[in-house]
Amino acid sequence: MPKKIPTRIYLEEDEIPSCWYNLRADMKDKPDPILHPGTLKPVTQADMEMIFCREPVKQELDDTTRLIPIPEGIMDFYRAYRPSPLIRAYYLEKALGTPAEIYYKFEGTNTSGSHKLNSAGPQAYYAKEEGLSSLTTETGAGQWGTAMSMACAFFGLDLTVYMVKISSIQKPYRKALMETYGAKLIPSPSNTTESGRKILESDPDTNGSLGCAISEAVETAVKTDKCRYVLGSVLNHVLLHQSVIGLETKAALDKYGIKPDVIIGCAGGGSNLGGLIAPFMGDRIAGKSQTRFIAVEPASCPSFTRGRYAYDFGDTAKTTPLIRMRTLGNGFIPSANHAGGLRYHGMNSTLSKLYQDGYLEARAAAQTDVFDAAVKFMKVEGILPAPESSHAIMAAVDEALECKKLGEKKVILFGLTGTGYFDLSAYTAYNDKSMSDHIPTDGDLERGFASIPDIPQNK
Amino acid sequence: MPKKIPTRIYLEEDEIPSCWYNLRADMKDKPDPILHPGTLKPVTQADMEMIFCREPVKQELDDTTRLIPIPEGIMDFYRAYRPSPLIRAYYLEKALGTPAEIYYKFEGTNTSGSHKLNSAGPQAYYAKEEGLSSLTTETGAGQWGTAMSMACAFFGLDLTVYMVKISSIQKPYRKALMETYGAKLIPSPSNTTESGRKILESDPDTNGSLGCAISEAVETAVKTDKCRYVLGSVLNHVLLHQSVIGLETKAALDKYGIKPDVIIGCAGGGSNLGGLIAPFMGDRIAGKSQTRFIAVEPASCPSFTRGRYAYDFGDTAKTTPLIRMRTLGNGFIPSANHAGGLRYHGMNSTLSKLYQDGYLEARAAAQTDVFDAAVKFMKVEGILPAPESSHAIMAAVDEALECKKLGEKKVILFGLTGTGYFDLSAYTAYNDKSMSDHIPTDGDLERGFASIPDIPQNK
Repeated sequence: MPKKIPTRIYLEEDEIPSCWYNLRADMKDKPDPILHPGTLKPVTQADMEMIFCREPVKQELDDTTRLIPIPEGIMDFYRAYRPSPLIRAYYLEKALGTPAEIYYKFEGTNTSGSHKLNSAGPQAYYAKEEGLSSLTTETGAGQWGTAMSMACAFFGLDLTVYMVKISSIQKPYRKALMETYGAKLIPSPSNTTESGRKILESDPDTNGSLGCAISEAVETAVKTDKCRYVLGSVLNHVLLHQSVIGLETKAALDKYGIKPDVIIGCAGGGSNLGGLIAPFMGDRIAGKSQTRFIAVEPASCPSFTRGRYAYDFGDTAKTTPLIRMRTLGNGFIPSANHAGGLRYHGMNSTLSKLYQDGYLEARAAAQTDVFDAAVKFMKVEGILPAPESSHAIMAAVDEALECKKLGEKKVILFGLTGTGYFDLSAYTAYNDKSMSDHIPTDGDLERGFASIPDIPQNK
Repeated sequence: MPKKIPTRIYLEEDEIPSCWYNLRADMKDKPDPILHPGTLKPVTQADMEMIFCREPVKQELDDTTRLIPIPEGIMDFYRAYRPSPLIRAYYLEKALGTPAEIYYKFEGTNTSGSHKLNSAGPQAYYAKEEGLSSLTTETGAGQWGTAMSMACAFFGLDLTVYMVKISSIQKPYRKALMETYGAKLIPSPSNTTESGRKILESDPDTNGSLGCAISEAVETAVKTDKCRYVLGSVLNHVLLHQSVIGLETKAALDKYGIKPDVIIGCAGGGSNLGGLIAPFMGDRIAGKSQTRFIAVEPASCPSFTRGRYAYDFGDTAKTTPLIRMRTLGNGFIPSANHAGGLRYHGMNSTLSKLYQDGYLEARAAAQTDVFDAAVKFMKVEGILPAPESSHAIMAAVDEALECKKLGEKKVILFGLTGTGYFDLSAYTAYNDKSMSDHIPTDGDLERGFASIPDIPQNK
């Protein structure tokens, strides 16, 4: 007799994984190395340590160690809010009338409201261990800035967050939360950095951009004693930390002998998707499963489905190392869609490689369709989802309805990355029917592609 | 060897209680009956059914049945978000350096963000079962309105929420959340009711009040076919539903053989406090324990510590039945403190009786002290608490520091009723040091007491 599957499957505290899983170690064809933008040679530990903390750089450059032990200080941090629940979507299944089983791993039960805390904690921990006294970062939608504020409060570090100016005006409560945790918030562009002053001189009334905020945060980190810069997505060490999501999910499913047929995640820089699928993808690469993997991105910023696979910069100022990835070009200007956390021109290099090699599918979703799914979901499952997470909900609903049509009893798993408490102005726009979809034209894309660097590796 | 106590103790899904516990059945001296305001005789089922749903009224008037089975339809609702975690405050204990063990039952993991959902679900369920098609209610801080919006979406009922006008302006995101769940929000006073129009005529620019919103909601319920009014606190059937909090807490503690020495809850109308302490108070009344119970109320609205024990109306318009309770008088105007959920002139009759009989202690907390405790808590425990809940945090911290002083290893339990995502303007005021305490003068209190009805029962 199979055990009855509860609505919420919780692991025991001592079942939180004690190692992160480094998927790259199990890939037959690995992602291409990060290049130094000056020499166009693979970056070294020393190159990257100028900007980032030591241990995360080591993790970034390590594509051979499968399991990386999680230090006790980080386990202590994880125990403050993990394990997170794996939820059987009984109510959604019933509402859809599907024969499919739907599960979602819910990362929004912590106060930062998203999975970002899984990497914020480790990055703050390593900074403290390495003798630093402060960190800098940028935030757009605010999830990463909030997570870093919490982590820095926990480990006793000062934090400066460059928040895109328009976002700091539109999201005063995000700002208040970070400040209550003790972070210093600076609307970007600001006159605290050279790059900020330069932009303000040419355009005093600019709303700011993520690219500009990154430049300010990096500049401040480099110029400040005992300070480094931290980033919340795109890089492989962030995906490594996020593998706790997938490892916990797999442990919970294994308890009930459940094998997912399809795994779905939203994709911006790729940190949640990469973390969720990691151990399942390892099985697929090893030939132990035939699980399908689906990345869902906004149609307004379609790096997987309409981008190119090329070396590109991570920022619009073209100062970062070069990463080979699915990209719309560092000069691509995504529209002001409400899933701010998915508004990035490029995609993590590991996920990009898996997509190129046919292990990962991708689809783009229009904003209004995403909110249709979000509202359907929240009324029956009782959770207010973040707009980012709702991209995955939409694809899960589509898959479940396909199962209904075909009479197939598949197991669908998706990642619910966070809550939408700070996104209620987006829901208001949806309720008012004043929301639009912002699909870029081919011309918009060509203008973005023109910014991809013209280097031999891209021929 | 005692089992290691995890940070979060989760019950299994099949350990959610299947009956509510009616504490009144075990009280030697029971609370005095509710009186009809016209006849001054105990109200009947028929009197109350004019306004409220049938089954909740039955529960309200039943002070002899100990255990009341929870219908399967409500269990189905509870399984969407329960059991809630009981958390060992390891990080807070360490930060305080106390030998005490601190536990808190966290009711803020559901999207409504508070314990209110525990009674919203049952009240919506009974309305549906009794053939109603819509409900009305009022909301001030917004927690109850949100909970009812979710419950009505779940059970398929229309809901009209009269939201205090100033609150609907100051909390646009609360409003957006309720509307996304499909509720109809009407800023009160409005021109949709006689009582609203009357107030608007005499004062067109009024900010509104809870008393006025109640009058509008009751009037609409009474005048609408297949419609009733629902209330989220103060009444005994609400405390009955909230007993799931205490029952789950006791089951979790029993697993580890933990006996609380002191139990603390914030108190506005009393629904969370009454629910949390119910089974523990039952033991105390039966002589099986010596547990202490502490109610913490805002110093700005001190019904326990500075109120009177008298029959009083529940609303400022003096239209409701009369309840014998600790009260500041229905005409008492509480200041605009940030714990809106605790801004009520009266207190549940059962808790009032327990206080009179010496089973329950009470203390009043000043707003700035409460926020000091809240910020200390959130930095180490990683949870953003509601201002209401933070009253309990403050008392728990005080008790733990007392243990430190005396070298006592007590077990302290408190109720963390909800999250503060919609209260960040209050945190901003705290950060800016623009927050004040609003302690009423003796003159303020006398003006409130003058509104208590002059009836024989109050002699």
